[in-house]
Amino acid sequence: MKQVEFFDKNNYTLLADFYELAMGNGYFENDMKDTIVTFDMFFRSVPDDGCYAILAGLEQVVEYLEQLHFSDEDIDFLRSKEIFSEDFLDYLKNFEFACDMWSVPEGTLVFPHEPLVIVRGPVIQAQLLETMILLTINHQSMIATKANRICYSAQDRPVVEFGSRRAQGYSAANLGARAAYIGGCAGTANTLAEKTYGVPAVGTMAHSWVQMFETEQEAFDAFAKTYPNNTILLVDTYDVLKQGVPNAIRTFDKYLKPKGIKNMGIRIDSGDIAYLSKKARKMLDDAGYPYAKIMASNSLDEFVIEALLTQGAQIDSFGVGERLITSKSDPVFGGVYKLTSVERNGHLEPTIKISENISKITTPGFKSLYRFYDKDTNKALADFITLYGEEVPQGEDIEIFHPLYTWKRRTLSNYTIKPLLHQIYDKGKLVYELPSLDAIRDHARKELDSLWPEMKRFDNPQDYHVDLSQNLWDVRTRLLKQHGKSTLTKEK
Amino acid sequence: MKQVEFFDKNNYTLLADFYELAMGNGYFENDMKDTIVTFDMFFRSVPDDGCYAILAGLEQVVEYLEQLHFSDEDIDFLRSKEIFSEDFLDYLKNFEFACDMWSVPEGTLVFPHEPLVIVRGPVIQAQLLETMILLTINHQSMIATKANRICYSAQDRPVVEFGSRRAQGYSAANLGARAAYIGGCAGTANTLAEKTYGVPAVGTMAHSWVQMFETEQEAFDAFAKTYPNNTILLVDTYDVLKQGVPNAIRTFDKYLKPKGIKNMGIRIDSGDIAYLSKKARKMLDDAGYPYAKIMASNSLDEFVIEALLTQGAQIDSFGVGERLITSKSDPVFGGVYKLTSVERNGHLEPTIKISENISKITTPGFKSLYRFYDKDTNKALADFITLYGEEVPQGEDIEIFHPLYTWKRRTLSNYTIKPLLHQIYDKGKLVYELPSLDAIRDHARKELDSLWPEMKRFDNPQDYHVDLSQNLWDVRTRLLKQHGKSTLTKEK
Repeated sequence: MKQVEFFDKNNYTLLADFYELAMGNGYFENDMKDTIVTFDMFFRSVPDDGCYAILAGLEQVVEYLEQLHFSDEDIDFLRSKEIFSEDFLDYLKNFEFACDMWSVPEGTLVFPHEPLVIVRGPVIQAQLLETMILLTINHQSMIATKANRICYSAQDRPVVEFGSRRAQGYSAANLGARAAYIGGCAGTANTLAEKTYGVPAVGTMAHSWVQMFETEQEAFDAFAKTYPNNTILLVDTYDVLKQGVPNAIRTFDKYLKPKGIKNMGIRIDSGDIAYLSKKARKMLDDAGYPYAKIMASNSLDEFVIEALLTQGAQIDSFGVGERLITSKSDPVFGGVYKLTSVERNGHLEPTIKISENISKITTPGFKSLYRFYDKDTNKALADFITLYGEEVPQGEDIEIFHPLYTWKRRTLSNYTIKPLLHQIYDKGKLVYELPSLDAIRDHARKELDSLWPEMKRFDNPQDYHVDLSQNLWDVRTRLLKQHGKSTLTKEK
Repeated sequence: MKQVEFFDKNNYTLLADFYELAMGNGYFENDMKDTIVTFDMFFRSVPDDGCYAILAGLEQVVEYLEQLHFSDEDIDFLRSKEIFSEDFLDYLKNFEFACDMWSVPEGTLVFPHEPLVIVRGPVIQAQLLETMILLTINHQSMIATKANRICYSAQDRPVVEFGSRRAQGYSAANLGARAAYIGGCAGTANTLAEKTYGVPAVGTMAHSWVQMFETEQEAFDAFAKTYPNNTILLVDTYDVLKQGVPNAIRTFDKYLKPKGIKNMGIRIDSGDIAYLSKKARKMLDDAGYPYAKIMASNSLDEFVIEALLTQGAQIDSFGVGERLITSKSDPVFGGVYKLTSVERNGHLEPTIKISENISKITTPGFKSLYRFYDKDTNKALADFITLYGEEVPQGEDIEIFHPLYTWKRRTLSNYTIKPLLHQIYDKGKLVYELPSLDAIRDHARKELDSLWPEMKRFDNPQDYHVDLSQNLWDVRTRLLKQHGKSTLTKEK
């Protein structure tokens, strides 16, 4: 089993919404501390109106759980809030994580309304994890998904994550680089992300390098002499076409061509990238450098890259910063963590939250999640949510239906079925072997191969089906009736 | 002097773009390691098309600089990249921070194109700080600014930061809560932010509390019994007006009224908050609870809050989550860090970066920054950027002009003038007393009082003037000419 390394030496046990602790004390005071419950983590819509998301962050959830404890300092701090009983503080002091947990593995394609992480255990414990599970999975899934969209727009050209300086804090930079790599980025500018996670760190020069020398030519020459095998010259400090590219060519002529070096390049970081890259490409070709690469950066994202390539921009690789590391066009991944059942009289009774917003109504019950694949094409056909322990079809024809628009029905045949949730914890013990980052990235790539291209486009992508089993749908309908809502669809 | 506490036990020295290290090695190899330079950190536009930003994050920059060092592990890692000379690695191993630094204090109002942080020192060192200074100041300034806009929209009603679960990583949650407090928030949901920074942590119940009991009434009763002095009941688990509010009133009647408790309240987290809050207010008033408070949450920001209050929503406080903690409507604070001068022949020669985008042209030179205040109203009149050491006006009339549209001129009289940049480091030694978080928050509040209301509105706010001294403008013009651009305005 891979050694779990702490992603941070801080104790993040108190990175919890205060209500989780207030409720914990309340359960303790109301003799409910041993009540077993289940919570689902799920999300309601894909950022950027996309069809799919890529799950990421599970490794950091495990690292958090492995270090979960209340230090004396934490207890003293909580005591100072003057709302917790001493008995509850004692309970926290002796806290030992005892929950079961299931999760979809990192790198897996996931869709709205399906359980991605399920926690089962004593209510005080299961509730306490809410903020950290959400924060971790929401953040990294958002970045992995965004990075994948950007890589998809780049059509197999390498995309490097350049965004640390605009990241929303240190872990946004570090774990963002990790998530971007899972989503398909080739590397990062952030050196620490290579040291910590093994994401390849790359980088050559800033404008300041050029400004440090009396002339741009001297700056380029000095760089090529120092780094003959890593010469990517930033050509837009003064004027790309009149100075930058001609100077770069002179440097290549003088210091690289004589050595037979061919992996040189230029980077353009401002101006009209489509126009400049085409002109620069021609200048490089005419000078005998058809193999010199052109890298582009400057406020790129999947929409800009798609437009640039449509206009025939001559770009070999992309550096993508702020719009990737913040998921700028849609910077919130709205995962939630909802109570789905409570143990009463020895068995788990499903619970529901109704809400005034129909999309916020939860799917009750302790569940399992499966994916159907076409036997011939190996493409994913639909996901299928059942009650835990329910028998699933093993190849016979099955009619599935949309959980909101129940008249939308479809019969599946010629399929294989695969469970998506893996057990991560068994009564507080880690029972899952964390894969390496490269294995996660490979898994994501294979997952993406199982998705039809129609689901990958940015505008109005095809929907992916996530359906409930008849049993689960019946439970949901019963609970809605019980709380005075006759059916789900009536609400529309 | 306040004890500097590490915001994180990690060593963030390698949280640097790899090019900073590649250039460092290049300067080392080219005998430029002792060359003194200056860098400016500045930003080019205010998020959300606002007029002003609030600077935040300086304390964490100091904490980073106080721990800056390359561990043996860091050196081994860098060696494995196979591009650094052993001499350079030795230099890093013996690295001692020796720069001067000036900064605008946290909580100060800042505007585009003015130097917020200035670093002067050996180029390898000054360059290495780029990513961490930008990351830290960009993130916290963005959140402080966003939080302030949201507080402004709430018109003196308390706003609590609720966003940890949607924050972009752990430091986004913790330092985001800190920055939101600087910007005016009353508190946070994040418990760790109180323990670490002293931001008041608050919270009562989630929907799961309600679901844990057989009925909503039992859930409310149990909460009021446990927390009679902190009873804020979440009323939207099933149906706000038919169940939630009536149940809350029954709980108040039974457990709080007999004790004379008056600081109870309800929270609404879904549905049409304007409609529901007005109905709920009437129900509470009619039941004899005119003093019961109504808190609203659910995807709020300054635009939604302004609209709700315009429609007469009856809300006493707001919980604001994802749209605050990610600055959702504009999640990038675009601060940059640019070389402004290089020591040549014993003095600092100004440098410029031209760029294809006119807004990316830098203001050269080692600088100072001042603010003019009206003597009578104490309102801020304009900011004034000069060369370092330049004499500034001390009360005599002065004509200032816009750096791009130089025909826009204005004469100031009856003013006081205040330097905005404070020295933080003197040759690597911390010489600044870090203020407490509450002092920073008070400073921000006073700063906001110095701004005309016309600059605070969200749509099309009035511009604030940031002008260059004649000397600085002359330097800029000379450098532009030298690089073949005749004047700045010609480019428009």
